[in-house]
Parts: sequence; structure tokens; C-alpha cells
Amino acid sequence: MTGCGGVAALFTLLTDYGAGSGYPAQLKGVLLAACPDARIVDVSHEVPRHDVLGGALLLEACAPWFPRGAIHVAVVDPGVGTARRGVCAIDPEGRRFVAPDNGLLTPFLGPGARAFALAEGGALPAPRSATFHGRDLFAPAAVLLARGAEPASLGPELADPVRLDWPTAAVAGREVRGTTLAADHFGNLVTSIREADLGSSPTVERVEAGGREARWVRTFGDGRPGELLAMVGSGGRVELAVREASAAALLGRTRGVEVRLVLVGPL
Amino acid sequence: MTGCGGVAALFTLLTDYGAGSGYPAQLKGVLLAACPDARIVDVSHEVPRHDVLGGALLLEACAPWFPRGAIHVAVVDPGVGTARRGVCAIDPEGRRFVAPDNGLLTPFLGPGARAFALAEGGALPAPRSATFHGRDLFAPAAVLLARGAEPASLGPELADPVRLDWPTAAVAGREVRGTTLAADHFGNLVTSIREADLGSSPTVERVEAGGREARWVRTFGDGRPGELLAMVGSGGRVELAVREASAAALLGRTRGVEVRLVLVGPL
Amino acid sequence: MTGCGGVAALFTLLTDYGAGSGYPAQLKGVLLAACPDARIVDVSHEVPRHDVLGGALLLEACAPWFPRGAIHVAVVDPGVGTARRGVCAIDPEGRRFVAPDNGLLTPFLGPGARAFALAEGGALPAPRSATFHGRDLFAPAAVLLARGAEPASLGPELADPVRLDWPTAAVAGREVRGTTLAADHFGNLVTSIREADLGSSPTVERVEAGGREARWVRTFGDGRPGELLAMVGSGGRVELAVREASAAALLGRTRGVEVRLVLVGPL
Repeated sequence: MTGCGGVAALFTLLTDYGAGSGYPAQLKGVLLAACPDARIVDVSHEVPRHDVLGGALLLEACAPWFPRGAIHVAVVDPGVGTARRGVCAIDPEGRRFVAPDNGLLTPFLGPGARAFALAEGGALPAPRSATFHGRDLFAPAAVLLARGAEPASLGPELADPVRLDWPTAAVAGREVRGTTLAADHFGNLVTSIREADLGSSPTVERVEAGGREARWVRTFGDGRPGELLAMVGSGGRVELAVREASAAALLGRTRGVEVRLVLVGPL
Repeated sequence: MTGCGGVAALFTLLTDYGAGSGYPAQLKGVLLAACPDARIVDVSHEVPRHDVLGGALLLEACAPWFPRGAIHVAVVDPGVGTARRGVCAIDPEGRRFVAPDNGLLTPFLGPGARAFALAEGGALPAPRSATFHGRDLFAPAAVLLARGAEPASLGPELADPVRLDWPTAAVAGREVRGTTLAADHFGNLVTSIREADLGSSPTVERVEAGGREARWVRTFGDGRPGELLAMVGSGGRVELAVREASAAALLGRTRGVEVRLVLVGPL
Repeated sequence: MTGCGGVAALFTLLTDYGAGSGYPAQLKGVLLAACPDARIVDVSHEVPRHDVLGGALLLEACAPWFPRGAIHVAVVDPGVGTARRGVCAIDPEGRRFVAPDNGLLTPFLGPGARAFALAEGGALPAPRSATFHGRDLFAPAAVLLARGAEPASLGPELADPVRLDWPTAAVAGREVRGTTLAADHFGNLVTSIREADLGSSPTVERVEAGGREARWVRTFGDGRPGELLAMVGSGGRVELAVREASAAALLGRTRGVEVRLVLVGPL
């Protein structure tokens, strides 16, 4: 086969390879050699090295914005070449993912999702290298999907794909507790508290983060210079920010800062 | 609508989001969900954070190289979510831009350009988030343009779109004075002096920058190691450079270094 | 001409410009203005500045993964604007390259390859700038190739395109000696020793690198924390690595670390 059934496949790529390393390019070469009309979008190649949780959070934030037919290839893979499996997953919305089976797909492995091992030696060739399964295993699997293969044809169904211990919020009366998870490029910190944890139409009375008071606002621009802010961010999670500066720098940490919100009135 | 009228739209993106942050990817997801055949080119996602002038200079240097039909989405937006307007502009060449109305489009807002507010609640939905108008306002506006909407249909015409106080050169007899504006990846410094400020076929007798002598050359390769050079750069502006090293590092600054050229003979 | 003969050209770009500098975008604008249906893949814009060998190694690793019809534009060009020539090369596999004639194409200039100077003033216009031949000379040359021009039509054949003194391994009995050449994003070091230098089905008994012992493994995951590892990497070269850490940091250098392998039994 030299085409992809005449369909212009859309692939997204999320890795910790570094955009300029040449590794994303090799992966794209494999995809384009098989699917010359493919569109390929870089979600990120700057996931902190081997940070599976960070990659999973980024994938959670980005994948839902793409058309349903997109095939998402995600590779943050400290265990490459060892016994860890590769996985193809399909979520209840029909989104398809190819990744190492190490928890990177956790946000999309909820109820109704299905996961299949990437069985080498079946439809997929044995990887050419032991160190670059993105190019040699996951990209070929994505090509098969783009050509119309069902996820189930790639290998046996997994009853137990690896899921990360996913950080969530603890709600007790008017108090919502969570923790910071990751920083973006601006030093804004996303937390484990979701908008939905705050109930409908919440009014936040008080915010503490890492022992500091923060002020609840609607957007960055509402802040004063140097002031620690909290708001519902664009991904539907509570975020900490400093206007035109870095909350991560102010708090001295990216992950694990305790955050506490007190709401006005009963939930 | 699920397509873009059968036309393969070309979008360019310029932001300060960071290429690997996931924010450009979300914006691309929105564009591709509406225009599956779109081509999307990253101009830059590494504009220094909130540096509207830096973004405007980069847009000035890059946008003219694209086909006229391209739709340029530019987002350097410290005021996101506040009262600042969004704007759609069309320049006399027919180039179309979508951006916050904060001066980012200054180079394309000269005589003959027209600018229109992005009116929420008309053709455009109210932004889903208060912090990510790139995804929630500017990308949807760009999609409307790609589908054939006229800029004027997006909102009321602006008589007074925000324009930056644009740095220019001062010409007095044989002397041309300006200032450095930005550094590129190599540490080359672009200045506020344009080739046109030097008259036709100029011969430059002497260059001073930040109190140092610089030598006027045609290209980097004409320099000696460590020597401060000045030349007409690829964007039509006078640039300062050091062969295989950084003029920004040598001068200790990126913006605001005074530059003085003395020409041979009368202008 | 406004099209590329109806063919969707595939271009790859490798430069030291910096992805966010705006220079790759200008080059893409030139390509897309001529070939609206072109696909453009960034191999890297993060080659260390003016590192021609580093760029050549990256090109060697990446170009073979793309379809044969791809046109590879590579620009690491400390001599831009000086007397150095531009070159168009075609290797025995039919891969086409456009680059400065400074050795950047060395891996593809072996027996059977042909190289042609980019003659200004013929099919190609004189470059508009003296400092940005990527945009003003190499991209237009790539466009001509995409439109069906033969490499030979771009200028006179070069009997002597510049070739780097390419680092190779020295094999003596059971001992193979080489040197480190470059680091990837993870700090893994590629060496001048190729898999083929080890003979067929080699067993490596002992590895020394920079005066340290390294352990021969199949993949990163086989290593213990902090342990220096050696393996055949995904590009077919012997690599040094540290599991979830940086071999470059451990050894304190990227290029020029001596590496010695001792094989089990006769070659």
C-alpha cells in the first residue's frame, strides 16, 4: 500500500523528544511515507523529559480540541525497549490514541474506553530499534489506523491498561483542596481542582496556595503586579498566576503546592 | 458548516505562548476542526512574553512573504479578558490579520488599512474562557474569514485601532540616528533605521552603536572575529552583528542601544 | 507560474535559525507562495549555531525516513553572502538536497551522487539579500525542483563539492575505536562507530568512554541509575547514554570523547 485510502489523515504528536532533535522529524517521515496527504500537528515535543503525568495533562488539555477523526500519537517513554507494552486506545467519543502503556493516556481511559496492546509480529512489524518505538512501533500503528484498521486488530484487548494515580480535588463542605500539577510557558500553575469541583456558579471567598493568600479573579488582567491570582483557566482547571510574571517562580515550585479554596455559602 | 468552502485556507500563527505549551496546538485544533484542509504555519511562538513591539516587528518581517490570501493570527496579549478589543484588519495589499487591538498590527495599519472590532455575540460566539482568546475568539474569527466572511462583517469599523509609537530613524544631513529594537536567535540586532532612510546607493562612512565603532559591511562573512558589524539586513533594516557571535551580548542589551550612521556625501 | 505542476511537493527544512526566529517562516512563505499545496516538515531549526557537522549528522539521521520525492533544504551557513557556492545535490537513491556548499551534505555525497552549483542569474534570481540565502536562494532553488526542474538545470556540475572530514571508526582486530560527535535532547551521545563496524551479530565485551567503563545494553531501560551505557542507537550508530539522565553531562563534553569497544571473539 502506498496511500491511506485516499483519506487525508490527521495526526497529532506529543513527545518529550525536543522539537529540534530530529526525532519528531523521523516520525513524521514515517507517517508521510505511508500517508502522503497526512496533516501532522505538533502538540508538544517539550514535555519535561520522562514526565508521564505532565504529558498526560497536556494531552488532556489539547486532544479534545481536534476533530474526532484525529489520531493522537503520544510518546513519553522512559521504559522504551523494556517489557512495557504499547497501547492503542479509543475513548467513548471515538478519539484514537497510540502510546506506551505507562499511564500517558490516563485522561482518556475512563469508563467506556477500550485499550488494545500493540502486538508485535502481527499487523505490526517488530520494531527496528530498541530505543525509538515512536518511529518504529507507534507511528506504524498510527498508519494502520489511518488506513482504516480497527484498534482491536492491532492486538489483544487490555483489561488493565496502566492508569496514573490521577490527582483530584477533595471537597468538604465549603472547602476545596487540591495541589498544583504543572506549569505552562508563562509560569501559570494548573491544579488538580476542576471547575466542576466548585459546583455551579461558585463564588470563591478565599484562596490559599503554598501558605500564601491568592486573590480570585476572572482573568490575568484583573491582577496587580506581583499579586498571586487564582482563576478558572482555559482548560477548565483552577490555575494560579501572576500578572505578567510567573506563579511558579513566586511559589518556588511547579508540582505539589497545596491549594485551598473556600467558597461562599453552601455548595 | 463543516468545511471552508472547499478552499484550502492558509493560516499563520504568531504568539508568545511557547511552541511546546499546548496552546498553539489547541488553536490549531480549532482551525482544523473547522477547516480540515487548512495549512497552518507557525511564524513564531517564542515572542518574548507580552512583548507587543517585538511581536509586531516579527510580523512585519514575516507576513509579506506569504501569499496574499493567508490569514495571519497574532496573539501577544497581556490584556486578555479585560476590556481591550479584538480586531480584524485588512491592509492595502489585501492581507488579513486577527489580533488583540493593542498595537500588534501597527506595521499593517498604515494609510489605506481598515480595522474592525471583533464584536462578541454577533457572528462570533462569546469566548468560552477569559484567559485564552487565541483559541476562543481569534481562531474562530480567522475561521470566519477563511469561510469567506468580510472583515466588516465581524464588527464595527474602528477609526482608531491601537498603534504603537513606532520607532523610526532621524535623518539630519549626512547623519542617520536610530535605536536597536530586537535581537534575533543569533544575537543580531535590528534597528529602527530602514534601508530607505539611507537614500539610494548609500555609502556609509562611519557607524557608532552604544558608544562603539562598528564597521559597515555587506554580510556577516565580511567580519573579523569579535568585530562589531553593521549592514542592511534581510528585512530591509540596518542590523548590528558580530560574525559567528552575538551583537546583543557584546553590547549588553537588546533594545534601546543608540545607533548613528554617517553617510559619505550628501543624501 | 503560480503552481507546482499540480503536484503536492514535500519539503523538509533543517537550519540553525531557531524555530521562533521568523526566518523559517519567511522561507515557508516563499515555498507556499510558489507551491500552495506544499507540505513542509521542520527537521530542526535548532542545529547549534554554525555547527555544519552537527547539521550534517542530523540530516543523515532524518532524510532517509522521508519519501524519496522530498526536497531537503538545509541551511547552516556561516559563510552566507561570501564566495561560498550554493549547491543542489542528488544522491544515488534520488533524494534531492539544496544547501550551501560547505560540507553540510557530506553524508549524501558518496559514490554515485551528483552536485550542481546554484548559478545566480540563470534560472535563479540574484539573491535579494546578502545575509539570508535560505529565503532568497535556497528556497527558490527548491521551488524550481518542485516544479520539475532537473538539478543539472540549476548550474554547472561540481566535481568537488565540499565534503567534511567525516569521522569514522578505526577497527583493529577485536578493538573498535571512535569518538563522540553530538548530543541529542536527552544528552545521549552519538559516536563515529556504526553498527556495521561491529561486524554481524557482535557481542561487545567491554566499552570505555572518556576513561570510564560503560556497560553494553540493548536499551536505556536496561540501565541502572547513573550508570554509563552504550548501545546501538536508533540511527545505527553506537550511542552513549545514562538512563533518565544525560551522558553528555556525565562526561562533561559533547564532541570528541574517545570511545573504545572490545568485541568478544574474532570479527
